[in-house]
Amino acid sequence: MNLTEFRKMNEPLIQQQLKELISALSIPAPLKESMDYSLQAGGKRIRPMLLLAVLRELGVRHPDALKVAAAIEMIHTYSLVHDDLPSMDNDDLRRGMPTNHKVYGEAVAILAGDALLTYSFGIIARLEHVSSDDKIRLIDLLSVAAGAEGMVGGQVLDIEGEEKKLSLEELEQVHRLKTGALLTYSILAGAILGQATPEQMVSFSRFGEHLGLAFQIQDDILDVTGTSQELGKTAGKDESSEKSTYPSLLTLPKAKEKLDFHASEAISAIRSLNSDCALLEELTTLIVQRKN
Amino acid sequence: MNLTEFRKMNEPLIQQQLKELISALSIPAPLKESMDYSLQAGGKRIRPMLLLAVLRELGVRHPDALKVAAAIEMIHTYSLVHDDLPSMDNDDLRRGMPTNHKVYGEAVAILAGDALLTYSFGIIARLEHVSSDDKIRLIDLLSVAAGAEGMVGGQVLDIEGEEKKLSLEELEQVHRLKTGALLTYSILAGAILGQATPEQMVSFSRFGEHLGLAFQIQDDILDVTGTSQELGKTAGKDESSEKSTYPSLLTLPKAKEKLDFHASEAISAIRSLNSDCALLEELTTLIVQRKN
Repeated sequence: MNLTEFRKMNEPLIQQQLKELISALSIPAPLKESMDYSLQAGGKRIRPMLLLAVLRELGVRHPDALKVAAAIEMIHTYSLVHDDLPSMDNDDLRRGMPTNHKVYGEAVAILAGDALLTYSFGIIARLEHVSSDDKIRLIDLLSVAAGAEGMVGGQVLDIEGEEKKLSLEELEQVHRLKTGALLTYSILAGAILGQATPEQMVSFSRFGEHLGLAFQIQDDILDVTGTSQELGKTAGKDESSEKSTYPSLLTLPKAKEKLDFHASEAISAIRSLNSDCALLEELTTLIVQRKN
Repeated sequence: MNLTEFRKMNEPLIQQQLKELISALSIPAPLKESMDYSLQAGGKRIRPMLLLAVLRELGVRHPDALKVAAAIEMIHTYSLVHDDLPSMDNDDLRRGMPTNHKVYGEAVAILAGDALLTYSFGIIARLEHVSSDDKIRLIDLLSVAAGAEGMVGGQVLDIEGEEKKLSLEELEQVHRLKTGALLTYSILAGAILGQATPEQMVSFSRFGEHLGLAFQIQDDILDVTGTSQELGKTAGKDESSEKSTYPSLLTLPKAKEKLDFHASEAISAIRSLNSDCALLEELTTLIVQRKN
């Protein structure tokens, strides 16, 4: 199965899993609609796909895989809902649709984000086919990847960085935390569910780190080279706000070189696993070549 | 030991535990300061005290009790930080001090709340003296109590309720979720750490439910009868905003009757435990008679 087939098969399953998890909640209608709205707004489902692809490479079919994938997608989605708020990035469009607070108001958008974040931990705690020890590993790593020492910390650094020119090291640290931590977590969560060995965990972790940086460099490049229509959000925003980005710090050609470097390091990390890793290689290429 | 002595002994320990948990984080300075600011702003520490009192009534000294108590206080604090935001309650003062967003800005306040919420799950996952099974029980219940089916859902109902007159049943549902769920959780978390029997869990749960309602009725009463100085926040806010409250739906004397009813039901629930529960009785009385 190639990546296109793999995605085509899994996308509706992820969508369905998200739908079911939200339907199962007995909660006030506006909250449910707001949570559902941003989850169903789509996106590339890169984090769920990474988790599912890792399990496939490990040759494991896990009955709880989709739930963990959905929990991670909820964390990713909550972070987008909060990032889009007027006091943060103040975005009106996300994936080509009005942002959550534009539809449901700021208060409900903040609370929907809080609810998605909280629910994701509950989903993992209630998995039926995972030992308590492994659930705790999943929750422990998730709280680090998504929290102050991971994604949330990266968002704070990103906000601080808007007011000053960052060094390349500082910019990398922003991205390692803001995007890399949760991407890497998606991979490691798949590895935990797939009972990967400690050595495999190390390779997966290295894969995640380089993949995360490649992902973010491409994001920065797209902001310069893409159109708003392709991106589903305002293009050229970083440039007009004089934000530090890979192209602005390095020039566009050098940024592309760096992208290629991290992509090839990512691929070398998974090749070191000595198993068939065609899907993860294709996913890496997809992330590097994506147009939005 | 009476409640005054118990609180005097435990307050600095809770404060210290919160300080240590925040110090342990390697995170951007403004995020750390913002998290610390609201945690150290004080408050009555009712949730940690409930957890610690339950453990004491069960005759258990648990080496991880303070950490769980701190995790719950972080959830409570994050909810206050988000509730105070301009798009929610728009409060400038909390516990007599400027609210988090007034000091650190809205973006950092939102992210500090997100970080506190995320960290609390990590703290429980990393406890050293609790089995993985019990950690999962703690996390499962916490995600329900704090999330869309608990506190966050209650906050949404509360916002919706501002635009219409609620029935008494609707008002009770708001409070059951918004305040009661996490108060009850604090009690049940103590019971889990103390290896309570299923029968004891039922009594503790009933205790929590009535205590939560008593707590909220007193909150509504204080908004009418207290001064801003006593409350450390703007008094009379509910009345001026024509919000549905126990006094507005029932009259003040009837609200006081209802308060007494729930307080005595709470006390009867813990007396059914057939052990010395003087501390929990005193805590109930304190909550009912408090001035802020």
